[in-house]
Amino acid sequence: MNANPKFIAAAAHVDEAAVQPLPASRKVYVQGSRADLRVPMREISQSDTPASFGAEKNPPIWVYDCSGPYTDPAAKIDIRSGLAPLREKWIEERGDTDRLSGPSSRYGQERLADSKLAELRFNLKRDPRRAKAGANVSQMHYARKGIITPEMEFVSIRENLRRAEYLESLLATGPMGKRLHELMGRQHPGESFGASIPKEVTPEFVRSEVARGRAIIPNNVNHPESEPMAIGRNFLVKINANIGNSAIGSSIAEEVDKMTWAIRWGGDTVMDLSTGKHIHETREWIVRNSPVPIGTVPIYQALEKVDGKAEELTWEIFRDTLIEQAEQGVDYFTIHAGVRLPYIPMTANRMTGIVSRGGSIMAKWCLSHHKESFLYDHFEDICEIMKAYDVAFSLGDGLRPGSIYDANDEAQLSELKTLGELTTLAWKHDVQVMIEGPGHVPMQLIKENMELELEACHEAPFYTLGPLTTDIAPGYDHITSGIGAAQIGWYGTAMLCYVTPKEHLGLPDKDDVKDGIITYKIAAHAADLAKGHPGAQIRDNALSKARFEFRWDDQFNLGLDPDKAKLFHDETLPQEGAKLAHFCSMCGPHFCSMKITQDVRDFAAKHGVSDQAALKKGMEVKAVEFVKSGAEIYKKA
Amino acid sequence: MNANPKFIAAAAHVDEAAVQPLPASRKVYVQGSRADLRVPMREISQSDTPASFGAEKNPPIWVYDCSGPYTDPAAKIDIRSGLAPLREKWIEERGDTDRLSGPSSRYGQERLADSKLAELRFNLKRDPRRAKAGANVSQMHYARKGIITPEMEFVSIRENLRRAEYLESLLATGPMGKRLHELMGRQHPGESFGASIPKEVTPEFVRSEVARGRAIIPNNVNHPESEPMAIGRNFLVKINANIGNSAIGSSIAEEVDKMTWAIRWGGDTVMDLSTGKHIHETREWIVRNSPVPIGTVPIYQALEKVDGKAEELTWEIFRDTLIEQAEQGVDYFTIHAGVRLPYIPMTANRMTGIVSRGGSIMAKWCLSHHKESFLYDHFEDICEIMKAYDVAFSLGDGLRPGSIYDANDEAQLSELKTLGELTTLAWKHDVQVMIEGPGHVPMQLIKENMELELEACHEAPFYTLGPLTTDIAPGYDHITSGIGAAQIGWYGTAMLCYVTPKEHLGLPDKDDVKDGIITYKIAAHAADLAKGHPGAQIRDNALSKARFEFRWDDQFNLGLDPDKAKLFHDETLPQEGAKLAHFCSMCGPHFCSMKITQDVRDFAAKHGVSDQAALKKGMEVKAVEFVKSGAEIYKKA
Repeated sequence: MNANPKFIAAAAHVDEAAVQPLPASRKVYVQGSRADLRVPMREISQSDTPASFGAEKNPPIWVYDCSGPYTDPAAKIDIRSGLAPLREKWIEERGDTDRLSGPSSRYGQERLADSKLAELRFNLKRDPRRAKAGANVSQMHYARKGIITPEMEFVSIRENLRRAEYLESLLATGPMGKRLHELMGRQHPGESFGASIPKEVTPEFVRSEVARGRAIIPNNVNHPESEPMAIGRNFLVKINANIGNSAIGSSIAEEVDKMTWAIRWGGDTVMDLSTGKHIHETREWIVRNSPVPIGTVPIYQALEKVDGKAEELTWEIFRDTLIEQAEQGVDYFTIHAGVRLPYIPMTANRMTGIVSRGGSIMAKWCLSHHKESFLYDHFEDICEIMKAYDVAFSLGDGLRPGSIYDANDEAQLSELKTLGELTTLAWKHDVQVMIEGPGHVPMQLIKENMELELEACHEAPFYTLGPLTTDIAPGYDHITSGIGAAQIGWYGTAMLCYVTPKEHLGLPDKDDVKDGIITYKIAAHAADLAKGHPGAQIRDNALSKARFEFRWDDQFNLGLDPDKAKLFHDETLPQEGAKLAHFCSMCGPHFCSMKITQDVRDFAAKHGVSDQAALKKGMEVKAVEFVKSGAEIYKKA
Repeated sequence: MNANPKFIAAAAHVDEAAVQPLPASRKVYVQGSRADLRVPMREISQSDTPASFGAEKNPPIWVYDCSGPYTDPAAKIDIRSGLAPLREKWIEERGDTDRLSGPSSRYGQERLADSKLAELRFNLKRDPRRAKAGANVSQMHYARKGIITPEMEFVSIRENLRRAEYLESLLATGPMGKRLHELMGRQHPGESFGASIPKEVTPEFVRSEVARGRAIIPNNVNHPESEPMAIGRNFLVKINANIGNSAIGSSIAEEVDKMTWAIRWGGDTVMDLSTGKHIHETREWIVRNSPVPIGTVPIYQALEKVDGKAEELTWEIFRDTLIEQAEQGVDYFTIHAGVRLPYIPMTANRMTGIVSRGGSIMAKWCLSHHKESFLYDHFEDICEIMKAYDVAFSLGDGLRPGSIYDANDEAQLSELKTLGELTTLAWKHDVQVMIEGPGHVPMQLIKENMELELEACHEAPFYTLGPLTTDIAPGYDHITSGIGAAQIGWYGTAMLCYVTPKEHLGLPDKDDVKDGIITYKIAAHAADLAKGHPGAQIRDNALSKARFEFRWDDQFNLGLDPDKAKLFHDETLPQEGAKLAHFCSMCGPHFCSMKITQDVRDFAAKHGVSDQAALKKGMEVKAVEFVKSGAEIYKKA
């Protein structure tokens, strides 16, 4: 693990596993109101229903696609050049930014001037942008002025996932079209705990949510490669994947590979938590190649700059770091400005003290100087930087509980209230904000977290790590936390930060990243279903229909991880024919429980009966048929 | 997978992986009121707190242990002889059973007489027992007569897990004993949704719960090898593991290995769902070697007896199967007596029809004959058999939903009401009952399932499969369902039937069994915590304390899967010394966030300050200290 080959820019290449198309999937773009506004989705095609089940046409379904151009065979991928800057023109057109002549941070300039770094540096040919003097380039600022940006329109199309078109397409599939339309469009009413989810997301709705602070679109003007997405309780629940090397592991190439791997499986944003050498260069490679927003925790890098001595941190060093990263294109910053001096003693009687790295650094600084946190004192100065590049705040929960024991304690809740005050302050500057949340919380205390956040932070999007619902399963904390994540997502959390199986034990590798992502896609989707997000059930319905009709390949392809589903199936029944067989690998040919209902349904259709009474009557006739044709139902293999 | 070596009884041997002691663990027995009443627990020892964290003694903790004698180095394990019949004397003493002269079922006699089976038959030397004419040997019957059986006392000791002794032991650990006592004993108040969980479980409480029907102790008089356990909403949440071969896979040896593997990791009961040849013989091997209750679905075997032709099933064949299995020692039977003729048409418009194998068989029978189910019609005849051996009902949910689409529909809820009526009928016979539940249910509909069950079935224990909270993740249904299981366990479900990653795709192998078990142990424990089960948080507290103090080995050993935790950790930091290092593998030496709190705590202790005001004052002094000794906190590796 520790012996990585030296990374050389000239030899950098994309991870081949990240550019394979997913089975039966095609990248499609939905055209918006302007030629350069093309919203990517993944179209999953399906086979027809077998004749024995009614020979229906099953139109393709569209699913949310975070993978960017990597899964588009038409795209030319060269990570040495980075992705195409699809938002460049939109930003340019607004006319409120200037091109600088190179980085304006001292550190950015130093790194650029360091010839020893040349061989591993990403070769960026354009200069950073910054707001013109006095301008505010945040999406929130535009939204509050009533402007619908292309980013907002992009988000609206993306969130709708062509649901209306899909349901419409079912009506045209033949005589059973109406039935199919009802079948696939049906969804259980949700319980959204006060969310305001529209049936159809309009660009104006996106604008109003961003203006209100209830959603953010993290899109730094220096990350024009990013495909806009929204984080807010009235949109689909999103997930974040953490990557990043540490002093004791992994190289630049490995981190870029983790990013492309994470978005392939559905990471909506990626946080680069690197703490080793070459943080600056690693980040550049990641941002230039990422179609999803990138978040960081700038204090990690600031600490590297003072050789790990927290007490030597200064506002000036931190400020320079913010500018350095903002000019690279980081879309959101975790800022632990809520770790205030008076709260630190509240952690003294905790079981696990301060477990947030950022929180710990700030606590040490506050204690060393016995002064209020410079992040808190300089909060409005930070806002000035955020709005000059459109970086969103992710207000860090530096005092989050690190154990069930410490859940919902005074330190945590005091910090949350401060985060609410800081939200108001950021909004005064039209700066976008989300709020980070715990952590380790037993189930009965999860809802309180959500309710307190909504109240204290005025519905700013909540962004939680898990929470883990028990501490007793190291090695399985993707699961202990997936349970909590599904619940808090249901209650209103807008983005769930994944936890991998390696949590508490080590740094995730690519397998762990995938396990974390899939677990959190499950949690997020379960939350969407429970909230009653319109159309969320379409994919469940399609997959269940495929399952019922023994369309095995469709069942794999419609799932979150077609590769694993197919692999597991093939372990038991490897023959290709088995994937069309009318029985499955658990029950064998004798015991198939899916076929019986089809017989009942066939009968009803054949005799034109549709209500229960007629159906009941039909059963009597059916009984005779069953006896006659019984052998057909439990066909031998 | 399909090419299993032929199983030969003479060569049968225990799976070596199942008899290794778990790290730092010791099998202990808590003595009850009689010499032969010894309740097994697992004692996990811990190392002392390092000097830098206060050099505390950390007494061992006791955890629930399902693994039976397999993890007792003092036990002689030979699966050809089976386990020692620890309850034999208790059953004998009650004087209400007769020894039969061999099996009384026709099928049991045939198999015994079949010389071709000799080489794979378990060599059982004792004859089956049955209640004397007119007697009722169910635990419920004794309970209702006011008798506290040794089984009930066993359960009470087991459920308490020596919590009181553990907390007491902390007081004796030295000057910090009182702090430790408070620290480890603290627990968040739970929300139990109307459960009545006592602080300490007395034998009388167990009796009253069994008498009331709110808990069951599944312990067939022909399974004297079993260690009594209770399933009920006022006890710890239990989990079940399904094993079983099918026509297309796995052998007797493989199934016995799955059973010993499942109980090693925490399966509280095991269901043998075999459907291939040699069901009878496979079951005998499993029951004779199982310290946990065994459940079956007798209709599977009955169907084999009529060559898979459901319409040829008869009450006589089924009845003979019940007796056959009851005399082998099966502890609970899934009986799909709620699949009534009038409910079958209600499934015609479902997305996935009838997905329960047993439900499907009974539906086919009802349709073929156009008659009411013989299970329903003969329900009281079945009760007569159950009470003659003390087999508990697990009333099957043959009409459970097989997709999110079908959740909580008319068919499902109609069946549930019938299960409630059958519960009342079974209780009339003093027969123990639990109720099976779904299935596939989105989160917002889970609670309704629990509430309807409690009401319709008069608080008979609910036993649910998952539920799966989304259909879109084949290959990960242990997780889609673990999310639902944790919630329904919290709401009041008494036992959670595991789902493995292979669900919908194939038969689980040993790895899948372990993944399923650990996921469900997490769900069950998260539920115990959320309900506020007394002492449930002790293990979380102990593990968190170990984590905070960088006692890595203790952290692994206190977890549900020490092997995997250690493996994951060692991938990043393989050196033995690293497991004692004061930093962890995620943050590296510079960024350790655990140490800071210890510094604050040390300061408070040293200066004898304990309240916030004094602590705050202390901070000022501390600030000076920090500056002086700063380098010590972020020690270089």
